Amino acid sequence: MHVTSPNLISIGQHIVNRLKELGIDTVFGVPSDFNMSFLDLIEDDETLTWGNNTNELSAAYAADGYARIRGTSALVTAFGVGELSAMNGIAGAYSEMLPIIHIVGSPRTRFRDSHALIHHTLGNGDYDVFYKMSSMLASASTNLTVSNAVSEIDRVISTAFITKRPGYIGLPCNIVNSMVEAPATASLCIDRPRSPIKTLTAANDHILKEIRNAKHPVILSDLGVLRFHLEYEANAFIERTGFPTYTAPMGKGSVNIDLPNFRGIYCGALSLDGIQQELEAADLLIELGSIKSDFNTGYFTFGLEHVKTIVLHNYGVIIDQAEYTGVQMQELLPMLTQGIGGAKPSFELGPPVKQKPIDQGSNEITNNYLWNKVNEYIKPNSIVVTETGSSGFAAPNALHAKDNTYISQVLWGSIGYSVPAAVGAAMAARHRQIYLFVGDGSFQLTVQEVSVFIRQGLTPVIFLLNNDGYLTEKLINGPYSSYNNFQMWEYSKAMTFFGAHLETNQNEKIGLEIQVKTREAFESAMETVIQEPDKIHFLELVMPQFDAPRELKMLAEIF
Amino acid sequence: MHVTSPNLISIGQHIVNRLKELGIDTVFGVPSDFNMSFLDLIEDDETLTWGNNTNELSAAYAADGYARIRGTSALVTAFGVGELSAMNGIAGAYSEMLPIIHIVGSPRTRFRDSHALIHHTLGNGDYDVFYKMSSMLASASTNLTVSNAVSEIDRVISTAFITKRPGYIGLPCNIVNSMVEAPATASLCIDRPRSPIKTLTAANDHILKEIRNAKHPVILSDLGVLRFHLEYEANAFIERTGFPTYTAPMGKGSVNIDLPNFRGIYCGALSLDGIQQELEAADLLIELGSIKSDFNTGYFTFGLEHVKTIVLHNYGVIIDQAEYTGVQMQELLPMLTQGIGGAKPSFELGPPVKQKPIDQGSNEITNNYLWNKVNEYIKPNSIVVTETGSSGFAAPNALHAKDNTYISQVLWGSIGYSVPAAVGAAMAARHRQIYLFVGDGSFQLTVQEVSVFIRQGLTPVIFLLNNDGYLTEKLINGPYSSYNNFQMWEYSKAMTFFGAHLETNQNEKIGLEIQVKTREAFESAMETVIQEPDKIHFLELVMPQFDAPRELKMLAEIF
Repeated sequence: MHVTSPNLISIGQHIVNRLKELGIDTVFGVPSDFNMSFLDLIEDDETLTWGNNTNELSAAYAADGYARIRGTSALVTAFGVGELSAMNGIAGAYSEMLPIIHIVGSPRTRFRDSHALIHHTLGNGDYDVFYKMSSMLASASTNLTVSNAVSEIDRVISTAFITKRPGYIGLPCNIVNSMVEAPATASLCIDRPRSPIKTLTAANDHILKEIRNAKHPVILSDLGVLRFHLEYEANAFIERTGFPTYTAPMGKGSVNIDLPNFRGIYCGALSLDGIQQELEAADLLIELGSIKSDFNTGYFTFGLEHVKTIVLHNYGVIIDQAEYTGVQMQELLPMLTQGIGGAKPSFELGPPVKQKPIDQGSNEITNNYLWNKVNEYIKPNSIVVTETGSSGFAAPNALHAKDNTYISQVLWGSIGYSVPAAVGAAMAARHRQIYLFVGDGSFQLTVQEVSVFIRQGLTPVIFLLNNDGYLTEKLINGPYSSYNNFQMWEYSKAMTFFGAHLETNQNEKIGLEIQVKTREAFESAMETVIQEPDKIHFLELVMPQFDAPRELKMLAEIF
Repeated sequence: MHVTSPNLISIGQHIVNRLKELGIDTVFGVPSDFNMSFLDLIEDDETLTWGNNTNELSAAYAADGYARIRGTSALVTAFGVGELSAMNGIAGAYSEMLPIIHIVGSPRTRFRDSHALIHHTLGNGDYDVFYKMSSMLASASTNLTVSNAVSEIDRVISTAFITKRPGYIGLPCNIVNSMVEAPATASLCIDRPRSPIKTLTAANDHILKEIRNAKHPVILSDLGVLRFHLEYEANAFIERTGFPTYTAPMGKGSVNIDLPNFRGIYCGALSLDGIQQELEAADLLIELGSIKSDFNTGYFTFGLEHVKTIVLHNYGVIIDQAEYTGVQMQELLPMLTQGIGGAKPSFELGPPVKQKPIDQGSNEITNNYLWNKVNEYIKPNSIVVTETGSSGFAAPNALHAKDNTYISQVLWGSIGYSVPAAVGAAMAARHRQIYLFVGDGSFQLTVQEVSVFIRQGLTPVIFLLNNDGYLTEKLINGPYSSYNNFQMWEYSKAMTFFGAHLETNQNEKIGLEIQVKTREAFESAMETVIQEPDKIHFLELVMPQFDAPRELKMLAEIF
């Protein structure tokens, strides 16, 4: 038995402490002989929950979803097999700026040192290849040793947190319980470096001058506001200015929709009718943390090239053609709000733009019907998860309940993301309602993660949009090709198959699990959903095979 | 309309032609906007079938399984999201020497050239990062351009084929139909370079001398025999020598089990009683294509360090301490067979070693019962797929029908492999019976690939070994830890959930789908399986929670 000095800590425990310091209470992943010694620490910690995911890709997606709610997340996989399976999820987190701390349980150091031919290796003695691959998708990465552990753990975690990109920690299974000197600093240093003060002041003055000279300034709020948790600062600025304000798809949820100057979603040609005209009449565009990716700009139909533009990021500011390097939106926004003095725009705007109303005369669940109708049932302060495909393209314009969070992979766009991401989000916010919209094609990739909802006692409402094939692809190429079709499943039996009704699983939160084909059936089901908020509901919506939301049809035409 | 010169060919068609030249008739993968222009060529080719896999990891596993039967295989994924999801499967193919030709549909060249911010990128304009990652898991890799396409396609495919490692072809979606000059050589150059003749002769003489001087020579046949398709040459040598012959787990299936000198599986301390003693009495060990990995050697209990050893590979030969570089087993084996003159060993061997008989007095489906009993039903010339876990450790010693092929990831060991690998093997050999053994834990990772069996009209017998948890891990660490347990599913409803009974799927080959708890029920079910060979059967075997096969128990003790 070891007597532990108060200045000593085990390597594994130091990782656990740092994760908890960031507010993490759930660790996602899949167990392995290479990581179980670390999982024991999670098991023994009463404040931590094990994600119990069905595979590593889903675990990574869940960690991504969790980080979108909590700001950061943790994932544990195994050397080789596990970490590679998670890689698409990690790349998505890199792309969309989620700091997943990826802890990879790796072989004993004596095997590594002797290049032993053990399982989960390529058989060539190379123990660094996977680390090298992962390093390309990380803001910081390390393979721990006893001597570097504390400083490297802190470096990787803080870098990931500050840059909002994944961090990679290779943890040999035999050093998890090795005792090392506790760090000199009790808490992680996770503050961003401050803006250079002269540059900050100059940028502030420059922007205020541009605003004073503008006749029709507008604001576009985007991803950076969400990722750097600047909703408060951004909304204070938006409210004070009174400028017409829009969000890009990736920034959806960043603006208080009750503000009278909030106008809706701007995504180029895919915007609702009238929005694009409003924006194109602007003479000054202030972008907050914007990302000009294809699906975030209506496939590059952004069309505001003639407008003078100010772009605020958390790593710098661009005003027209001038760059103010290192100036942070986080510091600049409060200064601008203070300096702007409550100037209101002098122009008039019409009533808020709405989507096309429901086409009557059919009883089918068309996209036009669904996206109009379902909005009536979405509760405020809920989390809406949509998939790359019909739901991801339709939801930005269609759904708008107050204080909602929207989760979708607009930039990375990996199908199969939404079910596990919803698991992660639900674990991150057990008190908030989760709505998950997923198409049949995407559902097939990661279907088993539905099991984790049941296992963890989570209560999302799941809308399975069944249009019998990969619709988005059919609209682009090969509408009748066999590669765009696949096996029809009995989707509405998912809950049953995944053990919802087995006594051994002891889950009493099972609600609807039905196939819905008509509008009456849908509305009746939604009444039940409203009446039974503490249950998990699974609605398979049978939709016409080639019916697409307006935005997807438009996109397919310009694609 | 283009008039095509007889010397011109489209880039996509050239790839298709080369794949077909290697005997490929099935292409695995998942469609994407970046690869559909290539999939059109597969769709239009009457001799090619699209794999229609449920996700990219499963598609890669299926390609691996197919290559184990056909020698090579093809996989199509999408830039970023798809290729990264497949990466664990590609790494497994690298590790276990399967030449998967991985064709990655990538963005239009104008997007790449302008570093455009499009979906499936990291958002930083880097279009090479995924290619660089994949190159670490490939024998050859390329990003095609119109000017390099023909030579690069041929280089990657032939290198992969010759080295038995994956090859990577990045194919921009806009150049699939670009016309290029057809290659000067009508067929691929896929011959291995010949052995240097003097070195070959010297190695042959040296080995024959060692054999003449040995009193108790034995042979161990392993992976290299299977991967380089040298079963004929190896068995001629084994038969002619009469030396006691064993296979390692990874070489299982390489030796004709009807040969009187075939003795069974050697895997160190995990061998059946008596086998290890036989081998340790040898004074000369001739290894054919051996891999000394942990699970292929009974976790390094190989114990033949004192025996003089000759190792034949297809890239060189080692005789005791002397290396004969570049000498190929393929050329050497026939020379040895010719030169050995039919010398028979002078020592006597007992009857073939058998596994421990069935423990009576219980009606439970224990591992001891299952692995004894099921062997009685396995047909000759079938394909047995097992999972890393109970089945993977038990099957080598337990199952032995003539001319069977055994598929398992003994070195890479990624759980979730077996279901998709069985899909690939079944597509590769529609006339052979497939038996799939998979544990509940592993099943959860890739369960949806069961759907593809149904979709493709395949008729495996699936044994789902349900012991309620990750048993292999429980035996190593944390037998009651929550991380080693997961949601119980209604496994026997898998076929139903995945649409076996939906009229739209038109599958009339659905056989048993049952939960089996007793020995009588198992034997009764197996009678049905025998009587209905043209159907898919799904047997969920409920097994005692901590009951393990003998080999796994022994392994856990020395682990």
